[in-house]
Amino acid sequence: MSGIDRASAELDLLGLHESLASPVIESMNFLNEVSQRFPDAVSLAAGRPYEGLFDTEAVHRYLRRYTDHLMERFDGDVVQVRRTMLQYGRTKGIIHDLIARNLAVDENVVVDPESIVVTVGCQEALFLTLRALRRSEHDVLLTVLPCYVGVAGAAELVDMPLLPVKGSSEGIDLEDLAAVVARAKESGLRPRACYVVADFANPSGISLSRETRERLLRLAQEHDFLVLEDNPYGIFSSPDTEQPPTLLALDRDRRVVYLGSFAKTGLPGARVGYVVADQRVSTGDGATEPLADQLAKIKSMLTVNTSPIAQAVIGGKLLEHDCSLRAANTEENKVYQRNLRHVLDGLAERFPPGRCPGVSWNAPSGGFFVVLDVPFPVDDELLEHSARRHRVLWTPMHHFYGDGVPRHQIRLSFSYLTPDEITVGLDRLADFIFEQYEAIS
Amino acid sequence: MSGIDRASAELDLLGLHESLASPVIESMNFLNEVSQRFPDAVSLAAGRPYEGLFDTEAVHRYLRRYTDHLMERFDGDVVQVRRTMLQYGRTKGIIHDLIARNLAVDENVVVDPESIVVTVGCQEALFLTLRALRRSEHDVLLTVLPCYVGVAGAAELVDMPLLPVKGSSEGIDLEDLAAVVARAKESGLRPRACYVVADFANPSGISLSRETRERLLRLAQEHDFLVLEDNPYGIFSSPDTEQPPTLLALDRDRRVVYLGSFAKTGLPGARVGYVVADQRVSTGDGATEPLADQLAKIKSMLTVNTSPIAQAVIGGKLLEHDCSLRAANTEENKVYQRNLRHVLDGLAERFPPGRCPGVSWNAPSGGFFVVLDVPFPVDDELLEHSARRHRVLWTPMHHFYGDGVPRHQIRLSFSYLTPDEITVGLDRLADFIFEQYEAIS
Repeated sequence: MSGIDRASAELDLLGLHESLASPVIESMNFLNEVSQRFPDAVSLAAGRPYEGLFDTEAVHRYLRRYTDHLMERFDGDVVQVRRTMLQYGRTKGIIHDLIARNLAVDENVVVDPESIVVTVGCQEALFLTLRALRRSEHDVLLTVLPCYVGVAGAAELVDMPLLPVKGSSEGIDLEDLAAVVARAKESGLRPRACYVVADFANPSGISLSRETRERLLRLAQEHDFLVLEDNPYGIFSSPDTEQPPTLLALDRDRRVVYLGSFAKTGLPGARVGYVVADQRVSTGDGATEPLADQLAKIKSMLTVNTSPIAQAVIGGKLLEHDCSLRAANTEENKVYQRNLRHVLDGLAERFPPGRCPGVSWNAPSGGFFVVLDVPFPVDDELLEHSARRHRVLWTPMHHFYGDGVPRHQIRLSFSYLTPDEITVGLDRLADFIFEQYEAIS
Repeated sequence: MSGIDRASAELDLLGLHESLASPVIESMNFLNEVSQRFPDAVSLAAGRPYEGLFDTEAVHRYLRRYTDHLMERFDGDVVQVRRTMLQYGRTKGIIHDLIARNLAVDENVVVDPESIVVTVGCQEALFLTLRALRRSEHDVLLTVLPCYVGVAGAAELVDMPLLPVKGSSEGIDLEDLAAVVARAKESGLRPRACYVVADFANPSGISLSRETRERLLRLAQEHDFLVLEDNPYGIFSSPDTEQPPTLLALDRDRRVVYLGSFAKTGLPGARVGYVVADQRVSTGDGATEPLADQLAKIKSMLTVNTSPIAQAVIGGKLLEHDCSLRAANTEENKVYQRNLRHVLDGLAERFPPGRCPGVSWNAPSGGFFVVLDVPFPVDDELLEHSARRHRVLWTPMHHFYGDGVPRHQIRLSFSYLTPDEITVGLDRLADFIFEQYEAIS
C-alpha cells in the first residue's frame, strides 16, 4: 500500500494522485508528443499561434516600452521602477490597469482593475477559480462537450467532477444544461459554474449567438451558478461579420468570471493570462471582498506572483497599440482569416458533393479551428497511421470528450501553417480519408 | 448552503475552498500588507533579496546572452531560436541543462537534466510535488516547525494535512521525527515526505550538521518517506565556514526531491525555480518513469510551461557566470554577510548581558534570518503597535507555526536593508523591546 517496490522503483503510479493515471491528463502530453515523433508530418493538429511574425527583438522593445511607462508613473524614480520589474511583486499583478483598458477598448466592457488577477497563462486562472469553487465532493463543474482538454485537467487537479452538457450546432444545448443542473441538485450536488468558450470554441469553432448568450446568463442567475467565460480567440473574427458581445459584457448579475489569455494575442512565450472576478464574497459580519482577492490568496501559495518581466513584455505590447489587441493583431488576423478560407475552400475542392458521403465540416467565420465529420470512428491509432503513412497530423475528437471513445470527427487547426503547408496537409488528409472510406465501403 | 446571499454578496467564503478561511493562507498576505500600510517603518520583516545591485539593463543582457546560446545550439537557425523563446514550449522547461550544470558546479552533485522540471518559482515546484504525493486523506506531510509559510499553504491547496515535527537547536529533533512517523503509521496515515530547509532555514536561520543530514536520510529510507529539500539560501554562506553537502548530494537511495529557487540567487522578478525528481515511478508492466515526468503532467494542467522568456533571463545569468551562482552572487553575498554581522554586533551592543533578561538570539553563519527570543509573547497586534509607535517591522514567530498561538520569538531579516537602515531598525527594535520588557517587569 505504500507504493514502494525497492527492487525496481521507488514509487508506484497507483500511490500518486489519481489525475496522473487519468486519460485526460495524458491527452495534452500525447498530442504534444505525436507531433514530436513525426516532425516531417504537416500538422493540422497544433493550436499554436502563427510564428511567421515572431521577433525576438520585439521582446526588448516591449520591455523598454513598459520600463518607460513605469518611469513616467514613478516620476523617474529608478529604484521604484527596478523594484516593480525585478523584485517580488504584487500577487494580483502589475498590468491590471492596462488589461482593464484593453477590455474597454476591444470588448467595450468596463471592469474594475482591482477585480483582475494576472496569472501564469489562462490555465492558472482556470485552476485558481476551480480551486476556490471546489469546497467539498458535492461541488461540480458544468462543461459543454466537446471541450478544451485543459479544463478537465484543471478540474482533476482539484478533485472536481465534470458534469457534461450537450453541445449543439448552436454551441450549447441549453435545455440539456437546465436538465443536468436540476438532476445534479436533486442528487445533492452543487453545480458551481459552467465553463464555456463563447467565441470560436476549441475544438468546435462554434460561436454562441447573442440570444444563446443571454439565455445562458439567465439560466446561470436562475439556477445559481457562475459562468466561466474563456475567450482566447474572440478577436480573431472576420471583418465582415460582427461577433456578439462577450458574456462578460452582457452580464448584469455578476455571474461571469472571465478568463483571459495573451498566448494567442500577446506572445505565448510570456505565459501571461488573467481572470476578471468581481463577484462579492461575504467574509463575515457584513463585509465583502471581490472574488479576485480570494483567487490572489490561492495564487500566493501556488506561484506567488506572475513574473513582472513577463508581464512587462505583454504590458509593452499593449502600450504600443493603445491597449488594443485587435490593432496589435491586424497582420496575424489576416493570416488566420486567409488560412481559414484556404481550409474551407480546400475541403470543398477535395470533397465535392457525392465524392465521399459522410464527410462534411462546419464553417466558422474566425478562430483557429474547423471540425470535420468523417464516415468512420477515429481513435489514436488512426492518428498514428495517418502520421506515419500519410504524413499529416490532426486531432481525434475524442480527446475533447475525455472518455477515449472514438468519435466520427476530427479537429483541424490552421493557425500555425502557411497556405502552401495547408495545401499539402489537405492533400494528404484527403488521401487518408479516401483510404479509410474505401476500407469501410 | 449554496453560499449565495443576493442582498449583499454573490458568494460566501464558507462556500469556497477551506484553505481560504485558514489562518495559514492569510499569513503571507497579512505580512505583505503590514509592510504596505507602514511604508515609513524600517522592515526587519522582508525576506526579499537586496535591491541595491538590481539593474533593468541586465535583463536585456541576459536575454541576449541566452539568445546567442540558442543561436549556437541551433546552428544559426533563427526560426528555431524564435520558437524556443517565444512559442509554447517544453513542459519541463528549456534551461534544465544549465540547471544541471549549476548543481554540478556549485553543489558538486550530478543530476540527469531529464529529472528536472523548471517551475514558476520554487512555490510551484512544491505544489507539483505535494499534488503528486497526495492521493487520499491518508497522505500527510511531515514538517519541522517553525516552517516557511508557503509549505503549509501549498499543502492546504491539495488538502494534505501537516504533521509537525519538533525543531531543535540542531534544526530538527530526529527522535521526534521517528516517533511522529511511527504514530502516524499506527493510525493509518501515510507520511509521504518530510519538508526541510537544511541550510540557513527560514525562519530559524539554522543549518543541519552533516551527521544530522545523514541520519535524516537513513530515517527516510528506513521509514519509507521522501525528503523535500528546499534550498534557497545555501550559497549565502560565510567564506570562513564550510556548509555540509546538500541532502541531495548525500542521498544514496533517491529519497531526496530537491526544490530549487532562483528568487534569491537569480532574479525574483523572473519567477523561475525548479524541482529535481529522479525517483523511479512504476507505471505498470515493469516500466518506470522519473517522478519529474509525473510532475510535468500536473504542470501541463496548472501553468502549461514556465515562460521561456523568464527562463532565458535566468539562463543568460547562468551562462554569464559559467553556471556558478556563487560566482554570480559574490557582491550580493558580501552584502548579506556584512548585514548579518551588523545585526549580530548591533544586538550584542544593545542587549549586553543583564540589560534585558530573556532577550537572546541565535548566530547563523549565513542566510537571511536571525531569531530573537524575547521575554513576552508576540502576536500580530504587537507587530502593529511596533510598526505604528516605533516604526519598525519584524515577523512574529507564530506565523511559522500556522496556529496563531503567540510565541516569545520574532524573526529578523536583514537581506533587504543597508547597514544604516539596520542601525536605525535595531535602535527602534530595542526601544520597542525595552518598552515591552518594562510593561511586564
